[in-house]
Amino acid sequence: MSAGFETLEGWYSSHDFREFDWAGWKALSSKEQDIILEELFGLFNQWRSFESKHAGAFELFDVVGNKGDLLMFNLRPTIDELIEVKHAFNQTRFAALTIARDSFSSVIELSNYVVKSNQRMADEAFVQSRLRPKLPAVRYLCFYPMNKKREGADNWYSLPVEERQNLMRAHGMTGMKFKGQVTQMICGSIGLDDWEWGVTLFADDPLVFKKVVTEMRFDEVSARFAEFGPFYVGRKVSNQDMVKLLRKD
Amino acid sequence: MSAGFETLEGWYSSHDFREFDWAGWKALSSKEQDIILEELFGLFNQWRSFESKHAGAFELFDVVGNKGDLLMFNLRPTIDELIEVKHAFNQTRFAALTIARDSFSSVIELSNYVVKSNQRMADEAFVQSRLRPKLPAVRYLCFYPMNKKREGADNWYSLPVEERQNLMRAHGMTGMKFKGQVTQMICGSIGLDDWEWGVTLFADDPLVFKKVVTEMRFDEVSARFAEFGPFYVGRKVSNQDMVKLLRKD
Amino acid sequence: MSAGFETLEGWYSSHDFREFDWAGWKALSSKEQDIILEELFGLFNQWRSFESKHAGAFELFDVVGNKGDLLMFNLRPTIDELIEVKHAFNQTRFAALTIARDSFSSVIELSNYVVKSNQRMADEAFVQSRLRPKLPAVRYLCFYPMNKKREGADNWYSLPVEERQNLMRAHGMTGMKFKGQVTQMICGSIGLDDWEWGVTLFADDPLVFKKVVTEMRFDEVSARFAEFGPFYVGRKVSNQDMVKLLRKD
Amino acid sequence: MSAGFETLEGWYSSHDFREFDWAGWKALSSKEQDIILEELFGLFNQWRSFESKHAGAFELFDVVGNKGDLLMFNLRPTIDELIEVKHAFNQTRFAALTIARDSFSSVIELSNYVVKSNQRMADEAFVQSRLRPKLPAVRYLCFYPMNKKREGADNWYSLPVEERQNLMRAHGMTGMKFKGQVTQMICGSIGLDDWEWGVTLFADDPLVFKKVVTEMRFDEVSARFAEFGPFYVGRKVSNQDMVKLLRKD
Amino acid sequence: MSAGFETLEGWYSSHDFREFDWAGWKALSSKEQDIILEELFGLFNQWRSFESKHAGAFELFDVVGNKGDLLMFNLRPTIDELIEVKHAFNQTRFAALTIARDSFSSVIELSNYVVKSNQRMADEAFVQSRLRPKLPAVRYLCFYPMNKKREGADNWYSLPVEERQNLMRAHGMTGMKFKGQVTQMICGSIGLDDWEWGVTLFADDPLVFKKVVTEMRFDEVSARFAEFGPFYVGRKVSNQDMVKLLRKD
Repeated sequence: MSAGFETLEGWYSSHDFREFDWAGWKALSSKEQDIILEELFGLFNQWRSFESKHAGAFELFDVVGNKGDLLMFNLRPTIDELIEVKHAFNQTRFAALTIARDSFSSVIELSNYVVKSNQRMADEAFVQSRLRPKLPAVRYLCFYPMNKKREGADNWYSLPVEERQNLMRAHGMTGMKFKGQVTQMICGSIGLDDWEWGVTLFADDPLVFKKVVTEMRFDEVSARFAEFGPFYVGRKVSNQDMVKLLRKD
Repeated sequence: MSAGFETLEGWYSSHDFREFDWAGWKALSSKEQDIILEELFGLFNQWRSFESKHAGAFELFDVVGNKGDLLMFNLRPTIDELIEVKHAFNQTRFAALTIARDSFSSVIELSNYVVKSNQRMADEAFVQSRLRPKLPAVRYLCFYPMNKKREGADNWYSLPVEERQNLMRAHGMTGMKFKGQVTQMICGSIGLDDWEWGVTLFADDPLVFKKVVTEMRFDEVSARFAEFGPFYVGRKVSNQDMVKLLRKD
Repeated sequence: MSAGFETLEGWYSSHDFREFDWAGWKALSSKEQDIILEELFGLFNQWRSFESKHAGAFELFDVVGNKGDLLMFNLRPTIDELIEVKHAFNQTRFAALTIARDSFSSVIELSNYVVKSNQRMADEAFVQSRLRPKLPAVRYLCFYPMNKKREGADNWYSLPVEERQNLMRAHGMTGMKFKGQVTQMICGSIGLDDWEWGVTLFADDPLVFKKVVTEMRFDEVSARFAEFGPFYVGRKVSNQDMVKLLRKD
Repeated sequence: MSAGFETLEGWYSSHDFREFDWAGWKALSSKEQDIILEELFGLFNQWRSFESKHAGAFELFDVVGNKGDLLMFNLRPTIDELIEVKHAFNQTRFAALTIARDSFSSVIELSNYVVKSNQRMADEAFVQSRLRPKLPAVRYLCFYPMNKKREGADNWYSLPVEERQNLMRAHGMTGMKFKGQVTQMICGSIGLDDWEWGVTLFADDPLVFKKVVTEMRFDEVSARFAEFGPFYVGRKVSNQDMVKLLRKD
Repeated sequence: MSAGFETLEGWYSSHDFREFDWAGWKALSSKEQDIILEELFGLFNQWRSFESKHAGAFELFDVVGNKGDLLMFNLRPTIDELIEVKHAFNQTRFAALTIARDSFSSVIELSNYVVKSNQRMADEAFVQSRLRPKLPAVRYLCFYPMNKKREGADNWYSLPVEERQNLMRAHGMTGMKFKGQVTQMICGSIGLDDWEWGVTLFADDPLVFKKVVTEMRFDEVSARFAEFGPFYVGRKVSNQDMVKLLRKD
């Protein structure tokens, strides 16, 4: 069985989850806290500037529950820049107040399951906006990694390409019902990280995450073939929001 | 296969399990302990006040066994308020005496598996009391997350909606046998956390948890389709109880 | 499928495994060690006194291998008393020299798989001696949690009650071969802890644990339906034994 | 299905894996290091003396990779002596420079799968040399725990005893091809530890471990029925070797 | 079923992943950092010198994501030399600034699945270049361990040797499509470490890892029989690169 499908790849993507050391933070003086945040915000501002140069993107999210406190989400044209992002953060004094938790390294992917006609593939503007996207100006993110199953009769990689295409397109139709409510970004990570794909959803109402993921779970492609990793929900945090979260005064 | 069922969502829910640092606590003077508890109880009282304003709920539980010591259970109308609950707790001095363990983020859910007739759906008071509940005035809680299986012939998400409804209603009938002994709250977490649902039971006799969960495990919907996560049992703790637990004098 | 079987429940049970901080212990002066052990033995003696009042039981075990160093095994009439057992231990200075590992919370269970005739159920003395037992005066304990499988064709909870009863009784017959060599205590934990049952065996020769568990594994009920958790073996430790273990002088 | 096979048991066995705290070690003065090693070697020499008295055995191994640094392998006639081995080590100052990792507690086992004729069973000398062995004077050890599967059609414990015997004997024949290159010790741990068996191989060339385990994996008994745990390889370490490893000077 | 295939083995291989303690590093003075790096680079230079003597190889990689920071990849003719590599690193002061994470111990393997004709086997130069390789002068590495499945109908070890050969050769053909873009090194670890094989890919463009692993996943041998462990991607780091990463000044 040959793959029989093509993918286009865009920017590399890093989801970096960190736990925050509140006790260490609170032990610092206001002045030390100021210095630490100033250094951190310098880095964050630099990372955010990639968006205006259309050379990447960065957003910080406040993570729901105990699986982590912060999610740093970065997009960059090369994997080297993602490695540098990690090092630049670890060089900050703020980094010593965090504990690295889960991470997910991947690359934005567009497949001909989704972009089917040659014509549309040729629609350079559409393709570029998907592969090198501007992050949607919405408030919440949902992230989860996933695999396609290879178990007994439910073996995605043994299906003929036509069947895979039909299943993926039906799945895409389900997603379409939520158009305008949610934006989806698919990253591929086969050969790059432990899971095969990472799905990032953006919405202004977190309930939409529940609605769309539930509806899609009943599609055959998910019901029979999907294996899901952990689910993370985060709320976008600006530098000012962060000051408010970390400082009571 | 389309989902073919509807859900109503109510308040967002957070189950936050913490381990307590007894050694750190005992190293403090009585006076420091008093100050820490006063700050903590200020927060807890504020959280409890949401119940009287019908804008949420809070209870603290003393957890059985070594999977954690405290369970903070909060309900709020929005996910933002749950994020603030987490931050407000982490800002306290008491928080530095705890280690975050498991957590579960979800939203109270009512499905038309359960509420089947249009008439009843229209029964606003009933629905509201389920979606935005007052916590039962009972002594013990049992909590467990769960999934529906998607394995070979036992694939919940591939069943026709009628079959799912029949199985869920038969399951509901089993639960009815325990009416008056146990109160059940179903939270949905597809797209919000790692498990698909979280079940919270409330009872005055913890043996009822064993009886009801055992009886329901023989229902086809559980026997064939349920995957269970960890089970937690806790005992309700007031501020006064907590003082007694933490202070010998 | 209804459960179609009944259980009787007795005392609540706690298996609490702890790792011992040898380095912390050795850093203390003899005098400090004496004070710590005196406090601990005060608690242990109080716990042991429940046996003479027939209001529970307590034994301490020295655990084989690196899965823990100590097992505190307590039985009490109510779950509240088990919660208090945990708090009372954590209040001791000795507790700060231990790290909580695995734990198992359950309730002693007798089912009509085992006690089948009405007559025998009526034999109050027999039933009571099983539900509220005196711990056997033997030297070794073996503990393991377990589930019954729900996988494809091997689904315990989908079997008719008669088949379950036949399988359990055949299993009981195998156990009978070891009568006099081993005493078995079954605790149920559905709805109370992560596993469905906990099996505690008591014997004067630890080889008997290997013999009986091996023999029973070939019974259909184990071969097809049992899922086993970790296995722990421990040796009973009196207060005097403990002094000898912890003090070289 | 009855077991239908017999086992003979010999010495109890402990595989105790430890990580070494290099930073703590290097922080000590040469003099302190000398004192610590002297105490440790006193214990090791005592353990080694059991071999000459034919009352057990001890060897220390340097573990390949990051799953641990040291493996202490002890054989003793009783489980009590193994518990004392653990305590005696933990009493040393050296122990505080190690972190307990994996451990495996079991008992040397000889089954009539292997020793089939009554005559041979009666061959006391042969049997004794297997149950209470002298450790081979070779340089490398390979250790791995394993289970026999109980999954759907591949259920070892549901096979007739004759089929189990045929499979085990064919397996033994494969092993025979490596006679003279590798020595095998089978320990049973059903009812004693998490896995059902532990296999310890000894050889002068570590490549033989790869060759023999690969060849045997194609036997039906492994291909269909074996579940393997982690694999450890170690190199034998004398007291002098250990000094060389730990001291550069 | 006999294995029916032969393997040739070359150098032993160690993939050693380490987390870097940035906080500890930054707490040191420039002078202390210089001394630590000088010692480390002395060791690295010695390790690199094995390549010129054709007696092994060494490269350091900067790891993508939070699964580790550094990968030390060493090849040596004997397992003893790999053990010495580990000790030599742990003896450095730099080692105390790292935390051991995953590791993978194996031996380079060439099977007659791949090298099929006797003639080619006899081609000593070709075989030697595979078994005792020079590492490709490219920038990125991808590493992942894997097993062959033994589950129900998908049991690699129960297939006839011809079928295994056909599947492996078809797989090799897929790999051939990427010739010139990627170099592959197969290490066998049955009997040596937890996984059965480790695959190391080298390329100048990390996107090639995604392309080749994806394409090969659709081959029957992967689709039906492969179980994959974690995937690691790293970027080659020279001593000078390392100074730049660790020092801002």
